[in-house]
Amino acid sequence: MKLGDSAENFENEATLQLDSNGELRHLLTLKGLDKATLTQLLDEAEQYLTSPGSVPARSRSLEGRTVGNLFFEPSTRTRASFDLAGKRLGADVLNLDVNTSSRKKGESILDTIYTLEAMQVDFMVVRDAGAGVPAYIARHVSDHVSVLNAGEADISHPTQGLLDLLTIRLHKVDFGELIVAIVGDIQHSRVAMSALHGLQTLGVAEVRLISPPALAPDPEKVPGARIMDSLDDGLRDADVVMALRIQRERIGNLDGIPGIDEYFANFGLSHKRMKIAKADAIVMHPGPMNRGIEIEGALADGPSSVITEQVTNGVAVRMAVLDRVAKTMGTR
Amino acid sequence: MKLGDSAENFENEATLQLDSNGELRHLLTLKGLDKATLTQLLDEAEQYLTSPGSVPARSRSLEGRTVGNLFFEPSTRTRASFDLAGKRLGADVLNLDVNTSSRKKGESILDTIYTLEAMQVDFMVVRDAGAGVPAYIARHVSDHVSVLNAGEADISHPTQGLLDLLTIRLHKVDFGELIVAIVGDIQHSRVAMSALHGLQTLGVAEVRLISPPALAPDPEKVPGARIMDSLDDGLRDADVVMALRIQRERIGNLDGIPGIDEYFANFGLSHKRMKIAKADAIVMHPGPMNRGIEIEGALADGPSSVITEQVTNGVAVRMAVLDRVAKTMGTR
Amino acid sequence: MKLGDSAENFENEATLQLDSNGELRHLLTLKGLDKATLTQLLDEAEQYLTSPGSVPARSRSLEGRTVGNLFFEPSTRTRASFDLAGKRLGADVLNLDVNTSSRKKGESILDTIYTLEAMQVDFMVVRDAGAGVPAYIARHVSDHVSVLNAGEADISHPTQGLLDLLTIRLHKVDFGELIVAIVGDIQHSRVAMSALHGLQTLGVAEVRLISPPALAPDPEKVPGARIMDSLDDGLRDADVVMALRIQRERIGNLDGIPGIDEYFANFGLSHKRMKIAKADAIVMHPGPMNRGIEIEGALADGPSSVITEQVTNGVAVRMAVLDRVAKTMGTR
Repeated sequence: MKLGDSAENFENEATLQLDSNGELRHLLTLKGLDKATLTQLLDEAEQYLTSPGSVPARSRSLEGRTVGNLFFEPSTRTRASFDLAGKRLGADVLNLDVNTSSRKKGESILDTIYTLEAMQVDFMVVRDAGAGVPAYIARHVSDHVSVLNAGEADISHPTQGLLDLLTIRLHKVDFGELIVAIVGDIQHSRVAMSALHGLQTLGVAEVRLISPPALAPDPEKVPGARIMDSLDDGLRDADVVMALRIQRERIGNLDGIPGIDEYFANFGLSHKRMKIAKADAIVMHPGPMNRGIEIEGALADGPSSVITEQVTNGVAVRMAVLDRVAKTMGTR
Repeated sequence: MKLGDSAENFENEATLQLDSNGELRHLLTLKGLDKATLTQLLDEAEQYLTSPGSVPARSRSLEGRTVGNLFFEPSTRTRASFDLAGKRLGADVLNLDVNTSSRKKGESILDTIYTLEAMQVDFMVVRDAGAGVPAYIARHVSDHVSVLNAGEADISHPTQGLLDLLTIRLHKVDFGELIVAIVGDIQHSRVAMSALHGLQTLGVAEVRLISPPALAPDPEKVPGARIMDSLDDGLRDADVVMALRIQRERIGNLDGIPGIDEYFANFGLSHKRMKIAKADAIVMHPGPMNRGIEIEGALADGPSSVITEQVTNGVAVRMAVLDRVAKTMGTR
Repeated sequence: MKLGDSAENFENEATLQLDSNGELRHLLTLKGLDKATLTQLLDEAEQYLTSPGSVPARSRSLEGRTVGNLFFEPSTRTRASFDLAGKRLGADVLNLDVNTSSRKKGESILDTIYTLEAMQVDFMVVRDAGAGVPAYIARHVSDHVSVLNAGEADISHPTQGLLDLLTIRLHKVDFGELIVAIVGDIQHSRVAMSALHGLQTLGVAEVRLISPPALAPDPEKVPGARIMDSLDDGLRDADVVMALRIQRERIGNLDGIPGIDEYFANFGLSHKRMKIAKADAIVMHPGPMNRGIEIEGALADGPSSVITEQVTNGVAVRMAVLDRVAKTMGTR
């Protein structure tokens, strides 16, 4: 898709998402978001956590507001998470299955956005396979509209990054001491990118990006991170280990990795392998998991796994983000 | 589809939509709807308009009621508009993707309707490619059910007509002086039909229906309208210019119009062309637009365009219609 | 699908659905559900019935709770019924079109369930073509989650069974005297199974299962029922006659039934045929109907038909079930 924006425009997503007072108005990326804002979002999200089995936290803070979920890529968990976050704040939620209607008719993204804007949709939650789409939309919406990036190509997935940070913070005290190992298809992972940006801002000791050489990131895109191709080396002394989802079809194209068994043997997380990491290391995965490929089922279900907590924290983080941008809009 | 109704039955849609006191109970067509009712609906809709960026108007007038969206044709904007209209009046909204379930199982339309009726769905918002379907349904529903036509074949689209009327009224004072030019695929346009019926009832000076000869309407179906095949002639002194969406596949079959460029050259609205119309003419389009085919992008986004206002007015009009038929039912 | 459960585990669905106090926590099957619980559910459902045309019964008893509709098979009526039941009790309802997202990505059922659980979805309404899926899920969910079977393979459909029982109870005084005839594709019918279990618990005089021999049930699966292959014999003195939906493609494979006409002649319900039954017999069908195949259209729409009442009762029954399991969870 041609967005009519030059590459350099993508540089200022970080400032584009702030209003003139420096308050968060859109959420496009964690890259460049300052530590105070990040910390405040995590603090606010934490207040939405309740004990398992109790009624989830609710408020009426978005009563009368409308959340539009525009998923140009299929999604269950992120869409459902934003849906519930919106409803639990009292908002009306409009779920648009964009593949099957306007796009069929050849409507442009912007016309869809202008239409929703005219219907007084206040929050546009956008997932798209095209790089730059959330920022492109944010540049064109009216003053009363917030754009929330719910997954952008292989570029970023900021609410996922926030929920990862919150999950880590609930288990680890001192970010300055943390070694975080991210394992898998780093090159195509928006999850890895957003986690990296957030972790660096919060000042962790080290982020390791571990993958087969063919799936390693461009070093220029991940300054400060350590690129590694040995899982055993990468896990040594790690406090946090995050497995990424790999597309099965990519596996056969990796040097020395003809099949799933080889991938698991080389880059799969398992109980046995986790012994290399710190004894109290936590195991994360953004889901949906390929059990037996990037992660052993028993590890995913074991005591070191915080994978379902991530999901819970995802709703809380999205409530906090909706609330925050609503407050920014309310004070304009 | 065979509906078991004879053609003459379609004649009395206008009376079918009124109850025994002459109050609006269904909304099937603007044809034959009297000026007082039309004007009242527009007045009520206008009360639901709020300034851009403010929280949309809301009430609890439909609390406990259920709106069922039955779209047998795909739609984003009309479905979303009814969805929000219902929710903002406090109703429960049930969105049924009818293509993918009951119809697969061979269930008849009436059985679907009876099922929803039995679930105490009060408002059935119906879009269907078959002529006569909304009236057919209206003839068969129980006393407590209202049928709202959300697009019927190439026959009518009354809430679209109402939002067009409201948009014009907000910009033009005296309907009696107005020249309205509707341009494009008139023959297949339910939008044009409903606009024509409403405009004639409100007493505009002239409605011009401009199209390539092959897409001109049957004169017997549009009494009182002026059928034209020159855009330049049609635009002369026009106060309101409405472009219609054309199906791209129809273009190649038009005499002298082998491609998109020729269509745009002959029947596309542009800034340059609009100079023929009155200086304060407004530009409308029901969406979704084919930019560069029936309308120049710059014109659609320019100061004379009221296209996004139409969308905003659409929600207001649908709230007004829901409210009105609910009142009719409440007084039975 | 391999569920990792042995066949004998399926035996104790009946106890699995109760908590340690014997209260209903999940609804997996009517088989083995005691008469007191069944009767109480029907009593509670009856309180949610209102007169046609009035606003449906509502409460805020599930406010703050979340109902997740997980339909792994397409469905309009059952999904819509649960959707409305949840909304009318004040719950947030999350509709997941599971075919088109996670399953595409190869996510396991359990991971989908754990994800929803982590999002604090309290009620999981599950329809699946696989036998044992609802019980399998129930065995794995957290303490705060209820699983409601919304249709399981050809095994059971307990809320359908409950709505059938309620419908019969509203028309017939003494269950002990009742002869109930169920006609059609018994072998593949979860509807027939759940009706049979419920009717037997409430102590009807006789349940007759009438079908072409090729569609007869395994006698061991329907102890106490009378298996018959003559519709005329089966209808004799029946108080309640329930037609089942047949898949059209099955018809051609039946001995002596080469086409639809033959099927209707032999196993189709009609006004004429109903004269064999009791004069006040009621006619039922779970929908969607194949008019002219398993049931004559005129009979379905006639005075003895209670088919749309079944739909109304379906919403009431689902409200009662949601309320009941919520109470069980609230007292844990």
